[in-house]
Amino acid sequence: MSTLSPFVAAFRQAAYPIGGHGRRNMQVLKEVLNELDDKLESDNYGTGEGIESFQAEMAAFLGKDKAIFFPSGTMAQQIALRIWCDEKGIRKVAYHPLSHLEIHEEDGLKELHQIESILLGEKDRLIRLDEILEMQADIACLLIELPQREIGGQLPPYEELVAISAHCRAKGIKLHLDGARLYEVLPFYQKTAAELCALFDSVYISFYKGIGGVAGAILAGDEAFIAKSKVWKRRHGGDLISLYPYFLSASYYFKQRAHKMGQYYGEAIELAALFNSCHLVTTLPHVPVTNMFHVHIALPKEKLEPILTALYAETGVGLIHYLRESSEGVCSFEVSIGDAYAKIPKDVLKHAFERLDAVLSEAK
Amino acid sequence: MSTLSPFVAAFRQAAYPIGGHGRRNMQVLKEVLNELDDKLESDNYGTGEGIESFQAEMAAFLGKDKAIFFPSGTMAQQIALRIWCDEKGIRKVAYHPLSHLEIHEEDGLKELHQIESILLGEKDRLIRLDEILEMQADIACLLIELPQREIGGQLPPYEELVAISAHCRAKGIKLHLDGARLYEVLPFYQKTAAELCALFDSVYISFYKGIGGVAGAILAGDEAFIAKSKVWKRRHGGDLISLYPYFLSASYYFKQRAHKMGQYYGEAIELAALFNSCHLVTTLPHVPVTNMFHVHIALPKEKLEPILTALYAETGVGLIHYLRESSEGVCSFEVSIGDAYAKIPKDVLKHAFERLDAVLSEAK
Repeated sequence: MSTLSPFVAAFRQAAYPIGGHGRRNMQVLKEVLNELDDKLESDNYGTGEGIESFQAEMAAFLGKDKAIFFPSGTMAQQIALRIWCDEKGIRKVAYHPLSHLEIHEEDGLKELHQIESILLGEKDRLIRLDEILEMQADIACLLIELPQREIGGQLPPYEELVAISAHCRAKGIKLHLDGARLYEVLPFYQKTAAELCALFDSVYISFYKGIGGVAGAILAGDEAFIAKSKVWKRRHGGDLISLYPYFLSASYYFKQRAHKMGQYYGEAIELAALFNSCHLVTTLPHVPVTNMFHVHIALPKEKLEPILTALYAETGVGLIHYLRESSEGVCSFEVSIGDAYAKIPKDVLKHAFERLDAVLSEAK
Repeated sequence: MSTLSPFVAAFRQAAYPIGGHGRRNMQVLKEVLNELDDKLESDNYGTGEGIESFQAEMAAFLGKDKAIFFPSGTMAQQIALRIWCDEKGIRKVAYHPLSHLEIHEEDGLKELHQIESILLGEKDRLIRLDEILEMQADIACLLIELPQREIGGQLPPYEELVAISAHCRAKGIKLHLDGARLYEVLPFYQKTAAELCALFDSVYISFYKGIGGVAGAILAGDEAFIAKSKVWKRRHGGDLISLYPYFLSASYYFKQRAHKMGQYYGEAIELAALFNSCHLVTTLPHVPVTNMFHVHIALPKEKLEPILTALYAETGVGLIHYLRESSEGVCSFEVSIGDAYAKIPKDVLKHAFERLDAVLSEAK
């Protein structure tokens, strides 16, 4: 712990972090295992009652024929796109310029699968419907990310998704859903996961993001698609002898939290309003559409860090442990509401934001 | 449990399985976590004190600059071969026809990396030195598996490994060690892991095989090689937010068992002699050179299964839970000695083999 910066140390010592479900420590997995009989057998290379019944449950939740558990979404999504490219005989897909595949995967899609990506839309906004309708490139698959994380978790209207889906079906383009945070968009759309997924040919969901599991992902689609996914999972080195630490925690925290996304969404709206009430602070979106949003504070990092460090120590509320300089003299960070938010006493929260406003007013 | 065959059910009910370290159940991971503070933090995408110190410890054990933890050996080895192919500008490697890469990975090496494999030697024996010295193909890398699992865990003499290494260095061919069961060969060679690995440019070891961890692997080599491995690990979808269930169990069981390989080796020799004393039974190798060997029984599966089912119930000793028909009228299976063997009372073991000999004599 001696190597932590004062900023990170102050965040860790704060009694009340505003985001997440609590610390990612051993207790997260111990709590899952403590519920289980010591003699419960491991899965075995993707077989076994535990993994198979969880996959069936997730397939039903997503309204798809079949689902398969993966150690990571990176692996699951590359494989989904590869299968659709092979099926269409076209090595081209389209997605947003800030898609996880484009910015976080070291070009795995190109280097492992020789798949070219067409970037649709702009970095600072959602892909527009007209950009999809007017796209000239011959692609095998369009990937839509709901919510679009890197721009604060924005969402297109449901009617636009319906139009995108109809267009893709008419054109023979496969539609894949990057639903890493799928649960988190359901309260906004007022749809079930299955209703939303019916617009898509394949869907990926994550279990360590909104759900707060240890790691892991589900990929769902029709029977032939999942049969091929299984072969590719082995090729990628993802067909482990034991995946139980991941799928058991996924299952456990899914049951605990999937139904709480409406609450988190409401809390995100409340918290964003508190941020927006402060000098120099804006959120993106201004009114969140999921449990997440981005915060922008118009101060350079070297000025903002000591201010927040002092604020955490004074109020016991921890806002964030890192700052990105998103543009000259502006810092930003992401907030994702989970179980931690409801644990903050209202007066403590109110006081923290009054103090934040006061110190930022002075810093102008 | 109602779907188990009588044979598998009898094996599971037997008090004394001869191989392995005990059942692969929740207790394996619970035992690891129970030793740890609840507040111990997860690793985070390959960073964190726990994973970094374990990697450093394994690099030192293997005598290499650096090591990196992977969720699977399939992923680690494909990546090693890809790096060497890229470095040499040659998309060709050589290995044994029964290498893991050839028979258990759904052609991942070809499908993901477009690497062609040259199969050296024959399926029923080790690669011979002259086959390596006289190889005409221009390859980037030669992979040697120690021990050669699919033929009962056989090993070439150490002097042959030295000659192979010298030849590869002279020819500019990279030499990779598939050391999934590396610990298990050290007693035979009477070498340290570092002494053996010094002959190789890169090495992979597994933690769920001889060591009995939950899953996971280490890849080791020089600094530039490991830096590239890290990028490829992300591309493959192996750079998980949390790998702690795997590397913590790897570390825990490594400490418990790595030093016991000499004992397991001696016990394998003893047990193989017991098998060889029975009618219709031979082991491969006749005298094991590691803690593993294969057993061949000259009876067809439909005759042997009920015989063994009855034997397990009568004696309490479980030999195996599956039978392969390796050739017409001959069954085979693999035995890998771990902690379970020493728990069998000597008279129980002696009685079981006397009964095995008796029932096989009658079955002739």
